[in-house]
Amino acid sequence: MIADLVAQALEGRPRAVAQLISRVESGSPDLPEIAALLAPHTGRAQVVGLTGSPGVGKSTTTSALVTELRREGKRVGVLAIDPSSPFSGGALLGDRVRMGDHALDDGVFIRSMATRGHLGGLAWATPQALRVLDAAGCDVVLVETVGVGQSEIDVVSLADTTLVLLAPGMGDGVQAAKAGILEIADVFVVNKADRDGAAQTVRDLRYMMSLGSRQDAWKPPICRTVAARGEGVDGLAKAIEEHRTWLASSGEGAVRRRRRAAAEIEAIALEKIRVRLSSSAVAEFADAVVAGDLDPYAAADRALQTL
Amino acid sequence: MIADLVAQALEGRPRAVAQLISRVESGSPDLPEIAALLAPHTGRAQVVGLTGSPGVGKSTTTSALVTELRREGKRVGVLAIDPSSPFSGGALLGDRVRMGDHALDDGVFIRSMATRGHLGGLAWATPQALRVLDAAGCDVVLVETVGVGQSEIDVVSLADTTLVLLAPGMGDGVQAAKAGILEIADVFVVNKADRDGAAQTVRDLRYMMSLGSRQDAWKPPICRTVAARGEGVDGLAKAIEEHRTWLASSGEGAVRRRRRAAAEIEAIALEKIRVRLSSSAVAEFADAVVAGDLDPYAAADRALQTL
Repeated sequence: MIADLVAQALEGRPRAVAQLISRVESGSPDLPEIAALLAPHTGRAQVVGLTGSPGVGKSTTTSALVTELRREGKRVGVLAIDPSSPFSGGALLGDRVRMGDHALDDGVFIRSMATRGHLGGLAWATPQALRVLDAAGCDVVLVETVGVGQSEIDVVSLADTTLVLLAPGMGDGVQAAKAGILEIADVFVVNKADRDGAAQTVRDLRYMMSLGSRQDAWKPPICRTVAARGEGVDGLAKAIEEHRTWLASSGEGAVRRRRRAAAEIEAIALEKIRVRLSSSAVAEFADAVVAGDLDPYAAADRALQTL
Repeated sequence: MIADLVAQALEGRPRAVAQLISRVESGSPDLPEIAALLAPHTGRAQVVGLTGSPGVGKSTTTSALVTELRREGKRVGVLAIDPSSPFSGGALLGDRVRMGDHALDDGVFIRSMATRGHLGGLAWATPQALRVLDAAGCDVVLVETVGVGQSEIDVVSLADTTLVLLAPGMGDGVQAAKAGILEIADVFVVNKADRDGAAQTVRDLRYMMSLGSRQDAWKPPICRTVAARGEGVDGLAKAIEEHRTWLASSGEGAVRRRRRAAAEIEAIALEKIRVRLSSSAVAEFADAVVAGDLDPYAAADRALQTL
């Protein structure tokens, strides 16, 4: 049954791909079996992460990139990661709707992931969904996150190529620097480049890069786009392809894949421990900590001893 | 030695407080001893989280709140959590500088925390820093995060009272709803309320709240502020105080403290496992996963068996 589903996904059948990702998201007990069946077929896709503040146009850029990559004949996967409420457990409708343009194209797989409301939820489910898309024959998988901060770190740990999106007037250089974007970007995208201030944003970026301490051989290019009209997106796709070539020739690609695998193994292992902890021991000790009778380190030791 | 340092911190001596927080941040081996000595003196401070998109004025609001709370004679702690680069390990200078206004006031402790570049870094270090400030006699500890997404979830799990900041023209209702802010806010702050669109932002919020499914007895008030000029900040301080009263009378305060303690114990326990994993086993298996010879679930099981 699972073997059939995986076989169909490997042929790129959209329904099988969707069903496998659903199982990943819901933490299905079949996950280890699915992972074992997928493993020999993974490692081919270029994982491209998109990050940036709300409002810079990440969804629009993702959609425009899908159009461009399809024009080049590539199979494309999209994982949109919603910072959904820890309480409602679901994401509200929003600009995800624009992806509807691609809904009838069977060379494109699009999926929204919720982050499941606990630390590390993204960490273990997303890489498994990537594996499904990779094994299903995607040449490129675009991973769109929302916001800045922790999710940025997650994107970097997942991606072969990280795009950092900016838009004119979305905040000054200090705000950008605060978020640590200089160190994580492989390609900068100044979207909404037809707006006032676009040239200034590019200058600010160049200035900040000139101050930076990055030692890589790769110099992040700055692409200007008006994603809503598809302008500049061919150049962006070219920059992504050039980064792929550099990853292969420099050996950095192998370094990133190894780092990603290590992070993935760690996340799965920690999730296993977390599930075992949360079922019992932690709640027992929380009251003692609240009362000041036990400190949290001692409580953690005792909780681990119960495993 | 540690006992002396803790004794001085309990008296509220700024240098001792700063040294203890540094030890927390650096993951000092003294942490369990520090935590044990602090435990009987914690549980008094109201932890107030501030979150919102970049540019809404979180640092300015934090600073204005410090001024107001000091006027009321309260001791105040500030933890500013930077989503610092996972690579540089440090935050760049920015609007944190404005906090310099309070640098000479010995009733205020201000501290920037870096998130240490791995998942969960925030999760275990920040609560320990909060414990130091709590034990040092702070009536209120303000925790300022940057951005939206995962860091919001973290703030909620830490805070007694969560402030969600908005500013006119920073994005439409969909963007706000995307980030799940309706469910997490105890108090809304519409900052920069002298700008065009402030009344509309308040109306949008009221409308979204009317659609929401929150069942709490507490209805989040909407405070309008111009934090840069201190306007409306007295009203915000009053709303925070009212929420504190409600937390105590409704029993929700105890629920949140227990939840926070449980999260804290879990984070420490997982960090212990993570450290033991990362020292050896994971790296061994990562190459096999990259090669497709081993799937990550099987690798995680093997890694856990080595512990």
